[in-house]
Amino acid sequence: MSYFSNVNKVKFEGPNSTNPFSYKYYNPEETFNGKTMEEYLRFAVSYWHTFTGEGADPFGAGTAVRPYDRLSGMDLAKARVEASFEFYEKLGVPFFAFHDFDIAPEADSLSQTFKNIDEIVAMIKEYMKTSNTKLLWNTANMFTHPRWLSGAATSPNADIFAYAAAKVKKGLEVGKELGSENYVFWGGREGYETLLNTDMGLELDNLARFFHMAKDYANEIGFDAQFLIEPKPKEPTTHQYDFDVATSLSFLQKYDLQDHFKFNIEANHATLAGHTFEHELHLARVNGMLGSVDANQGDTLLGWDTDEFPTDLYSTTLAMYEILKNGGLGTGGLNFDAKVRRGSFDTDDLFHAHIAGMDAFAIGARVAQRLLEDKVLEDFVADRYSSYTSGIGLDIVEGKTDFHKLEKYALGLGEIKNKSGRQEKLKATINKYILEAYATVNA
Amino acid sequence: MSYFSNVNKVKFEGPNSTNPFSYKYYNPEETFNGKTMEEYLRFAVSYWHTFTGEGADPFGAGTAVRPYDRLSGMDLAKARVEASFEFYEKLGVPFFAFHDFDIAPEADSLSQTFKNIDEIVAMIKEYMKTSNTKLLWNTANMFTHPRWLSGAATSPNADIFAYAAAKVKKGLEVGKELGSENYVFWGGREGYETLLNTDMGLELDNLARFFHMAKDYANEIGFDAQFLIEPKPKEPTTHQYDFDVATSLSFLQKYDLQDHFKFNIEANHATLAGHTFEHELHLARVNGMLGSVDANQGDTLLGWDTDEFPTDLYSTTLAMYEILKNGGLGTGGLNFDAKVRRGSFDTDDLFHAHIAGMDAFAIGARVAQRLLEDKVLEDFVADRYSSYTSGIGLDIVEGKTDFHKLEKYALGLGEIKNKSGRQEKLKATINKYILEAYATVNA
Amino acid sequence: MSYFSNVNKVKFEGPNSTNPFSYKYYNPEETFNGKTMEEYLRFAVSYWHTFTGEGADPFGAGTAVRPYDRLSGMDLAKARVEASFEFYEKLGVPFFAFHDFDIAPEADSLSQTFKNIDEIVAMIKEYMKTSNTKLLWNTANMFTHPRWLSGAATSPNADIFAYAAAKVKKGLEVGKELGSENYVFWGGREGYETLLNTDMGLELDNLARFFHMAKDYANEIGFDAQFLIEPKPKEPTTHQYDFDVATSLSFLQKYDLQDHFKFNIEANHATLAGHTFEHELHLARVNGMLGSVDANQGDTLLGWDTDEFPTDLYSTTLAMYEILKNGGLGTGGLNFDAKVRRGSFDTDDLFHAHIAGMDAFAIGARVAQRLLEDKVLEDFVADRYSSYTSGIGLDIVEGKTDFHKLEKYALGLGEIKNKSGRQEKLKATINKYILEAYATVNA
Amino acid sequence: MSYFSNVNKVKFEGPNSTNPFSYKYYNPEETFNGKTMEEYLRFAVSYWHTFTGEGADPFGAGTAVRPYDRLSGMDLAKARVEASFEFYEKLGVPFFAFHDFDIAPEADSLSQTFKNIDEIVAMIKEYMKTSNTKLLWNTANMFTHPRWLSGAATSPNADIFAYAAAKVKKGLEVGKELGSENYVFWGGREGYETLLNTDMGLELDNLARFFHMAKDYANEIGFDAQFLIEPKPKEPTTHQYDFDVATSLSFLQKYDLQDHFKFNIEANHATLAGHTFEHELHLARVNGMLGSVDANQGDTLLGWDTDEFPTDLYSTTLAMYEILKNGGLGTGGLNFDAKVRRGSFDTDDLFHAHIAGMDAFAIGARVAQRLLEDKVLEDFVADRYSSYTSGIGLDIVEGKTDFHKLEKYALGLGEIKNKSGRQEKLKATINKYILEAYATVNA
Ligand SMILES: [Co+2]
Ligand SMILES: [Co+2]
Ligand SMILES: [Co+2]
Ligand SMILES: [Co+2]
Ligand SMILES: [Co+2]
Ligand SMILES: [Co+2]
Ligand SMILES: [Co+2]
Ligand SMILES: [Co+2]
Repeated sequence: MSYFSNVNKVKFEGPNSTNPFSYKYYNPEETFNGKTMEEYLRFAVSYWHTFTGEGADPFGAGTAVRPYDRLSGMDLAKARVEASFEFYEKLGVPFFAFHDFDIAPEADSLSQTFKNIDEIVAMIKEYMKTSNTKLLWNTANMFTHPRWLSGAATSPNADIFAYAAAKVKKGLEVGKELGSENYVFWGGREGYETLLNTDMGLELDNLARFFHMAKDYANEIGFDAQFLIEPKPKEPTTHQYDFDVATSLSFLQKYDLQDHFKFNIEANHATLAGHTFEHELHLARVNGMLGSVDANQGDTLLGWDTDEFPTDLYSTTLAMYEILKNGGLGTGGLNFDAKVRRGSFDTDDLFHAHIAGMDAFAIGARVAQRLLEDKVLEDFVADRYSSYTSGIGLDIVEGKTDFHKLEKYALGLGEIKNKSGRQEKLKATINKYILEAYATVNA
Repeated sequence: MSYFSNVNKVKFEGPNSTNPFSYKYYNPEETFNGKTMEEYLRFAVSYWHTFTGEGADPFGAGTAVRPYDRLSGMDLAKARVEASFEFYEKLGVPFFAFHDFDIAPEADSLSQTFKNIDEIVAMIKEYMKTSNTKLLWNTANMFTHPRWLSGAATSPNADIFAYAAAKVKKGLEVGKELGSENYVFWGGREGYETLLNTDMGLELDNLARFFHMAKDYANEIGFDAQFLIEPKPKEPTTHQYDFDVATSLSFLQKYDLQDHFKFNIEANHATLAGHTFEHELHLARVNGMLGSVDANQGDTLLGWDTDEFPTDLYSTTLAMYEILKNGGLGTGGLNFDAKVRRGSFDTDDLFHAHIAGMDAFAIGARVAQRLLEDKVLEDFVADRYSSYTSGIGLDIVEGKTDFHKLEKYALGLGEIKNKSGRQEKLKATINKYILEAYATVNA
Repeated sequence: MSYFSNVNKVKFEGPNSTNPFSYKYYNPEETFNGKTMEEYLRFAVSYWHTFTGEGADPFGAGTAVRPYDRLSGMDLAKARVEASFEFYEKLGVPFFAFHDFDIAPEADSLSQTFKNIDEIVAMIKEYMKTSNTKLLWNTANMFTHPRWLSGAATSPNADIFAYAAAKVKKGLEVGKELGSENYVFWGGREGYETLLNTDMGLELDNLARFFHMAKDYANEIGFDAQFLIEPKPKEPTTHQYDFDVATSLSFLQKYDLQDHFKFNIEANHATLAGHTFEHELHLARVNGMLGSVDANQGDTLLGWDTDEFPTDLYSTTLAMYEILKNGGLGTGGLNFDAKVRRGSFDTDDLFHAHIAGMDAFAIGARVAQRLLEDKVLEDFVADRYSSYTSGIGLDIVEGKTDFHKLEKYALGLGEIKNKSGRQEKLKATINKYILEAYATVNA
Repeated sequence: MSYFSNVNKVKFEGPNSTNPFSYKYYNPEETFNGKTMEEYLRFAVSYWHTFTGEGADPFGAGTAVRPYDRLSGMDLAKARVEASFEFYEKLGVPFFAFHDFDIAPEADSLSQTFKNIDEIVAMIKEYMKTSNTKLLWNTANMFTHPRWLSGAATSPNADIFAYAAAKVKKGLEVGKELGSENYVFWGGREGYETLLNTDMGLELDNLARFFHMAKDYANEIGFDAQFLIEPKPKEPTTHQYDFDVATSLSFLQKYDLQDHFKFNIEANHATLAGHTFEHELHLARVNGMLGSVDANQGDTLLGWDTDEFPTDLYSTTLAMYEILKNGGLGTGGLNFDAKVRRGSFDTDDLFHAHIAGMDAFAIGARVAQRLLEDKVLEDFVADRYSSYTSGIGLDIVEGKTDFHKLEKYALGLGEIKNKSGRQEKLKATINKYILEAYATVNA
């Protein structure tokens, strides 16, 4: 059967196409930076938002109208798998990603839950044999069930810690079974509601213990996926331990975990932490820790994670700029951790939204690539910092100065002249490159 | 002459005093935690807000009416010194703190500027001989003059870096000369306005180079003050590199600086970063990095650093709780990095504001002390995490588990029972302790 | 049967009681402002949070453990009614409040839904005969079911408008049947997700039409409850039409509805709009529009409606100050639109939380009353504005000036002297009054 | 003499020009909506940011390097006038706007201050005779001097009220003298710092009295400019009375001032109030109150008014969409209430910034115009609300229903079907139109 019968395979038809179910700017076969755009951008569909999500919010029930609405339990889980591979195929998207309980329902016992997972994983594995779509990453849901109310690896309850370990153990096995290229840890409820009842020191120590055990087990079974931490600051708990890249980096450094992890950076989590998306990407990059991206956008006038599909071309451009500077994402990808709005409830919207996001990143990639080819920002930056390439500046960088030498130099200076940062001109330049992107698609 | 003639020495008169220029709750001579309250709380007056500040804001000129308003240049600087020691004496405050340009005006040349500083420092030293007030910390202002527009140690201009080094060299010498117990680095303009023109990697490397040179020079001259970094997230630059405790810790770890620094934590900077004051104190504490406190409060409905005098008893209680758990602040203190509101423009307000802050911290200290004596929170926490003191929990903490063992344990578990976090009850308990504080003062 | 067997009737036992299930500060029988405190404060329990709520959040399922968990449908609804009256009785709370679907489940057809409501309403009416607890307000839930996804009275779909009318018609009938003293309109989904697809003009016109019809129908059936609008700015929709008091007032003025409505002001909604709780109360009060209060508190570092039980004594004091200046709340009350934290999941927490809130408001009431008796703020304000009681100031207030006269006066002025606003001293005074409250309870 | 000798007259040179001092997209002579683009967009330069502003911020002194830096007093004022008209001429901008103290320094006495103003106004009038640049609006600065610390028309001091009246009287006379098309009231310090010392009722009454007197005087002297209120929520005071459009509208309605005022809407003030720019424009428009625009942009991750030059094409597009729906701005215009960043300190940046802003609005205007021509949003909206054009929906709109009729209708309904709001598709459509704008400029 077909789950999405009113949509055919979505193809690149160029910006002038009037077919809403076509890519206007994303051309998977176009050569981009030595690969095809498909190979470079590595788009992924998020199973949870697209197949499991029902469009509920804190004030209302699900609105989504889905072809498998009448099913439940394992039947529902299997229908979703079928639908998902049809969806990947129609979009031509090379990756997907899931939490364990996105794909299989939780049972009354942990052993039965594992059986449910195994059954669906086997089904997915079968589908993957004939599909072009691979698993970008998987993870374990350790936040939905009431047992996780105070955390998983940071729970005050040691039984919960053990339960979490069993879940992640299974997750690593599933990842290996399906050839996942990464394994993600999102903090879920790893954080606190109030310091009044919290032993933060023990909780952080335990989290580190958990991560070390996870790494050990992955090594043991030969699962060599990249481990990724996904920072998020303040939802669902009041304070999440993986607040942002810098906070998580500090944690990894303290507990000697830095070599075993990179970051999965989400745009909306960045803004909730008070940063731009590109800031988090940049900070991860200059620390060699940029692993993968949850490609979405937020609403900075709202105070929660809205997980909107990414359409802001400034954001996609500056994100792709960082990704290109990083030499791509390696085993990572651009995962649409994004949900259609509650008012966009029919299956057509799933296509519209993914097309919007993929086109927006395709434009962003083109703009970023041209900015780099023309060395627009790089030349400006090189000139701005040129004083560090000779004289006292070079001495500073090469460690040949101390406060005596610098004081002597400073006392001999006349009026120091700074250069304008030209922020307004640079912003106009970004506009120029975005506006010209249309021409490059047409060509 | 007297600068504050309508205020006599402020004394503890107890809660029923109707004298507005008396302490109602702060009793410097009361024994507190094995010291006097004066010795324990180590209050400091901020020279910049109280003597240099004029009550200007981005939309208006200074409103402050001060006895030295008619003066300028070095005459003004000297009058402020005189006034400051009268103020310390009348408040009975044991510490003060300053930036170099709070005490002495910047001249046309760096060498003349240094002479100005030396002259005022000599004057301050003379005053300190007969005063009970000591220097908690000093620092260098590297943000007001236009030359710092793009940073000091992180400036794109190497000449600025050198100039900053000369300033901090002088600052360390001044600190040694005046017996300062700490030396503070607040990022000032160490951050960026836009990533479009910024080489964050070079800037952070340079900042680390600068700190290492500063530490080397302090060692060279035998200035053994505690170095302190004061995190702040987003003002004046769009992004400040010392965003918060976690971010700054990550920086110190990366550049092998952690052993040489602690943190000076400001309440209003915490909230600008999206954290509570107590969160930042707690995080610093569990990392052994809590050095000193900028005691103020912000307005979480406003988006900038309002630097209000601390009067919120919840905030002072939870801050003192962390400080007591830390065994005090060591060489650090409670520095009122706080300014009277622009509408509180006369000198009486300087007294009202400091009295308000000192009384609020005295209450907070009493409440926190009683919470600890009664082990109110500690017992609750111990019980909440008790599963880690035996059985599987103890195995986890002692490193005797792995994912195999934990999975086996988890598969054998029945329904896991969590304990209520009792947040509402704990909050009511805090209220009870605050309300009872009055009785303890009377006693 | 008893639903809350481990809690006896909660009584006032004074601040020194160690019984956690007692009031420390709330003494219902104490004379307060010419009434008993019970009569004056008019506390209400919110049915939705306390009996219907399950402790779910956007990332997790319900955690609440309730004695009626095994039931469903009408059986569950009836058990909740039984439990609720036991709860009111044990707390001794004089009011409750509900949405239609808090008390009775929605059925497949509107007519069957109405029958469900009627059946439960009859049961509640029966309980009310022997209970001291009355209905503060009822309202209609027009936000949970998917049909309301784009609003009720502001839906783009006229059928939805009609459906909403039928719901509110029933709600008014229910209110009359149960003797409700108010009827509340909370905007629910009356707002927009994006302007790109919204006809704001039509939506607002329709909302006004709806309110007029509601008023007409209430008049027709002789239901003379006070109509209340509950402003909220930005959740669940991106923009809620009843953003805050000022916005809602503008709407009521424009559509000639001001005489028929007052406001139900919620603390957490105020802060989400960027205002203090007391600001919203004050603004409503000076416009004669303060009707009732949803007594809770938010977390200003989080960006959503956390609906916490009110424990902040500054907030309860300043709220009670406005309420006392208003001469009380008339038919309104203090409704705990507050939910126990997800981690406070057992039934004891329901008692702890209500006790915490009632004690906090009892303290706030005492403090506010004493501030008024001593005319602390009123005298200060009177002095600060005294220039408007004579001379040119009185002329201004009495309308006897124009720009000619004022210019002439201004040209004749010498230097104008302002008075200090004394904000720090006033804040210290509030602390003093809060700290002294303990003594007044003991007395 | 020339103040900006390294810049020639800025001309439209099209998107492919490499001349940084040319318009790429703004073609003043292009026909737009029946006028020239110059006539339609009505750009204005803000005197304060561009000629008076020095690039100071709360943490640092001015950085701006200006050709008249060595001057002071009236000499400086006159040099700025000269420079300003050279600047207008080189940009080809049709309007400017100023506060009284932008153009002339405040003197020791009010009468001398008025003489200073008169002298500079005469000079400006002379320049205007031969310039194409006209006065969009003027206003009075009633926030910088310490006297205004607690407000102007809302000051607790009646002398200040009188002084403010004299200032606005002069401002109205100046506006008439220079043929200003509007007169603006920005609240400045009309708000409060703390409710503890505030009589909000009296302050608002006084503000209304002030506005009525201002209107009376304008009528008296035959100055028929449009009066404009510029809402802003929370800077410099904690709460500004003109919080946003809805709040200000409520005020105008209450005091019978609505017919005499429209709004001057600033993008950054909108976001500080928690709204989008287009929300405020839309709300003003549907109330017939959209008067003029302060064209800038903010940084929603920062909590203060950054007043950046507008470069965000989404923002300029949606703003122009509202302006086009409004039939243009009438006597209003697009005033760049924007300042170059502190790091963009040389005079070239003044040109870069204005060019960036004008090009961004020219693109936005083209995109908005094409959206309207193609009825992209209008058709979608018409379809979405079509149920109100017949049947029960039309009855609702025409006032032919009541709750009886609607209930009967609702009870007869089957399952109600909603339509998807298609937010993701609409956002992709906006991207498409922006990206195609380049082609329309080329054509
Ligand atoms: Co994510
Ligand atoms: Co997210
Ligand atoms: Co500080
Ligand atoms: Co500060
Ligand atoms: Co409410
Ligand atoms: Co709420
Ligand atoms: Co403006
Ligand atoms: Co502004």
